[in-house]
Amino acid sequence: MAPILLENKEYIKQHVQVKNPYLDAMEEDILYHFNLSTKTHNLPEMFGDVKFVCVGGSANRMKAFAHFIHQELKLPGNPEELRDICEGMDRYCMYKVGPVLSISHGMGVPSISIMLHELIKLLHHAQCNDVILFRLGTSGGVGLAPGTVVITDKAVDYSFRAQFEQVVLGKVITRSTELDEGVAKELLQCSSEFQNFPTVIGNTMCTHDFYEGQGRLDGALCSFSNEEKLEYLRKAYDAGVRNIEMESTVFAAMCRVCGLRGAVVCVALLNRFEGDQITSSHDVLVEYQQRPQVLVSHFIKKHLGLLA
Amino acid sequence: MAPILLENKEYIKQHVQVKNPYLDAMEEDILYHFNLSTKTHNLPEMFGDVKFVCVGGSANRMKAFAHFIHQELKLPGNPEELRDICEGMDRYCMYKVGPVLSISHGMGVPSISIMLHELIKLLHHAQCNDVILFRLGTSGGVGLAPGTVVITDKAVDYSFRAQFEQVVLGKVITRSTELDEGVAKELLQCSSEFQNFPTVIGNTMCTHDFYEGQGRLDGALCSFSNEEKLEYLRKAYDAGVRNIEMESTVFAAMCRVCGLRGAVVCVALLNRFEGDQITSSHDVLVEYQQRPQVLVSHFIKKHLGLLA
Repeated sequence: MAPILLENKEYIKQHVQVKNPYLDAMEEDILYHFNLSTKTHNLPEMFGDVKFVCVGGSANRMKAFAHFIHQELKLPGNPEELRDICEGMDRYCMYKVGPVLSISHGMGVPSISIMLHELIKLLHHAQCNDVILFRLGTSGGVGLAPGTVVITDKAVDYSFRAQFEQVVLGKVITRSTELDEGVAKELLQCSSEFQNFPTVIGNTMCTHDFYEGQGRLDGALCSFSNEEKLEYLRKAYDAGVRNIEMESTVFAAMCRVCGLRGAVVCVALLNRFEGDQITSSHDVLVEYQQRPQVLVSHFIKKHLGLLA
Repeated sequence: MAPILLENKEYIKQHVQVKNPYLDAMEEDILYHFNLSTKTHNLPEMFGDVKFVCVGGSANRMKAFAHFIHQELKLPGNPEELRDICEGMDRYCMYKVGPVLSISHGMGVPSISIMLHELIKLLHHAQCNDVILFRLGTSGGVGLAPGTVVITDKAVDYSFRAQFEQVVLGKVITRSTELDEGVAKELLQCSSEFQNFPTVIGNTMCTHDFYEGQGRLDGALCSFSNEEKLEYLRKAYDAGVRNIEMESTVFAAMCRVCGLRGAVVCVALLNRFEGDQITSSHDVLVEYQQRPQVLVSHFIKKHLGLLA
């Protein structure tokens, strides 16, 4: 059940739910890829006040976001001294900035899926309440100008279905990938409050590779024509797809199953109708990648009552 | 066609093949996730002499391997000065040590798939010949003592089929995941030359997540019993599976399509019949992770005529 937002912005406290009957009986839970454990770390003390978790593919980008949100929330201390909580393992990085966690998840569904399992367990062990998850990503735009920010309505698969196929003990099961409508709408409202960059709500297609699955003509393997590629992209556009990335379906599915409100906010680095290669300069790409951060930071500040 | 190894160890030169008719007509090819391009880098000069490419999930581990192979090949210079060729992007790291490339690929099929596309294009642009690819990984063992090294016979999916499903423009196609038998046998021969650790040839199951897909009882989600888990692992064992990891099928499929000889060598960190959590100490895990490196280094030294 999603947490209930009352008119006066008070929440009915909603614990983060794991869906595993064995977990609480375990003497120790090692969150292996985070280099944390319930025995060696006091997770409620370290993480109990977390309200917003922001995740993204690149470790550098999520470190930059930690510095940015530190500044935005006007927190005391030197952001340069923020420590990577997962230091010693190089699978993910994690920074805590007041009520905000910033975590990297690598590329693709399997990589983010490992992170999400361990994150949801972490939030559960830490007895966190009313947490909102954001994925801040990069993507290929479908019929959008480069730099446009897409707030995901539905995360869809290669056939434009709002579902995620998960293998459990050799059997394929299907999970819904609908995201929280309220958070998406609120993000769109935030975007209208500063007009620096275009923002839309649309469906996000999640693929399992960057080349053949996304219809790129520039991979090591390519067996289709430019016309066939464009036809596929047109079909995607007609199904409401506005961008393509590689993590949104499992993110949406796991948020939903665990009763977490989640949103996916990605900037389009290029318009796939116009090409496959990412040719913008480094500086332009860096500025594009800050846009989802600016938007989500605005949302967080609003929720914390830091905006007039 | 695989390159032909003649008795006197001379090869019939075999260029690395891309399977993309458009690539050679491109004015520039930006290998985006490597931060390299055919326009800004002289790829034949930088990489033309590469004969062995070793890839693994963790950036720290592949840096350690670069240092190790530098020492093993008795190359001049200070290994501490090896520079990450992909510096400036944090998706992968890459080190060149004489004829050996050491590259990290992150976790899961999508992440390694992006790297392989760009690696195969790199080797093609650099006009490399007779390259052998190795994946040096970690895995969960199936009926094996922790620390055992598994050389992959066939990479299989969750149903124990030696195939990889690739989506191309919304359609699922199937590719074979058979690996080079000769390289696997030669690696087993190498392992028998030093008896420090147990090594076997077996099938490797590749899954798209670490928890539900591998039958772990300790994820954020778990909907099955311990008995059902053990039954699935027993079925896997009966199908010849000796370890479980998350990259081998696409690695095998892409090597095969591009005529590259490839091998997968993973150490088992635990025996999945005995548990799910990785509980060995840091030092023990570090030593385990060196085992595939020691084996592949021996193979490389043999091929370079550096062993008596």
